[in-house]
Amino acid sequence: MAPEAELYFEDFVPGSVHEFGPAVVDEAEIIEFARRYDPQPIHTDPDWARTGPFGGLIASGWHTAAITMRLLVDQYLPAAASLASPGIDELRWHRPVRPGDELRVRVTVIEARLSRSKPDRGLLRSRIEVVEADGSPVMTMIGLNLVRRRPGATG
Amino acid sequence: MAPEAELYFEDFVPGSVHEFGPAVVDEAEIIEFARRYDPQPIHTDPDWARTGPFGGLIASGWHTAAITMRLLVDQYLPAAASLASPGIDELRWHRPVRPGDELRVRVTVIEARLSRSKPDRGLLRSRIEVVEADGSPVMTMIGLNLVRRRPGATG
Repeated sequence: MAPEAELYFEDFVPGSVHEFGPAVVDEAEIIEFARRYDPQPIHTDPDWARTGPFGGLIASGWHTAAITMRLLVDQYLPAAASLASPGIDELRWHRPVRPGDELRVRVTVIEARLSRSKPDRGLLRSRIEVVEADGSPVMTMIGLNLVRRRPGATG
Repeated sequence: MAPEAELYFEDFVPGSVHEFGPAVVDEAEIIEFARRYDPQPIHTDPDWARTGPFGGLIASGWHTAAITMRLLVDQYLPAAASLASPGIDELRWHRPVRPGDELRVRVTVIEARLSRSKPDRGLLRSRIEVVEADGSPVMTMIGLNLVRRRPGATG
């Protein structure tokens, strides 16, 4: 699936749903990410983690978010029109992500609002759900994205 | 500054403020993180970024969050008592983070609530502010953390 490079703000219609993935979570990558950014033994030490509260190594929640971002960049965000993100609301980690998990992402556009101050862009609010192969959610969040309007769009 | 390994839920009093850092942001690390997790040229290609909307390379917002997590693990979260995070609210990226920036973190405990279902722990809500050397905020968020109560605590 190619990046949707030709899409603009007007193409993200509230109610529309986009699904993509998977990303397969790798144990070595869980450990590498966590050693650098979240060095807690539940994320870095498989032996410790086996006896820990989750019965095995789990990914840092920030690693799950980063994997999700990679899927959004590769398969969802329009390369030309995507400008920036002001932030994220209601990020929740629902279940542990483990080595071998296959994560898929479902994005539902909630709201599309033209910018008041900059007429060339609009703000999208989207519900982003990250699910395992069996459909159970591991992470959900509301994403905010500034996206360029189609060239020549006015009003 | 050593990790506050001996602290428990009771030690995180609403209104208390903890400040720590810095983490110095490195250009090569910005590019390495972004190539893996957020491969947009504003984060991966210094030449492209110089002519882009921010006049230079900027860190992925998720990279800033990951750097913040490393500071929290090294200098704030109690190693023994920290159990998990259910999530994050109101994450906002206010200004671009650039190579050479020195990030500091200020955590203010907002609320400390005992768990209803598990009497050995409580939930902290904290305002987390990431600021540059001049004090200007680059990222803010509300963090949620499940933290173990002091052994023997009851009621």
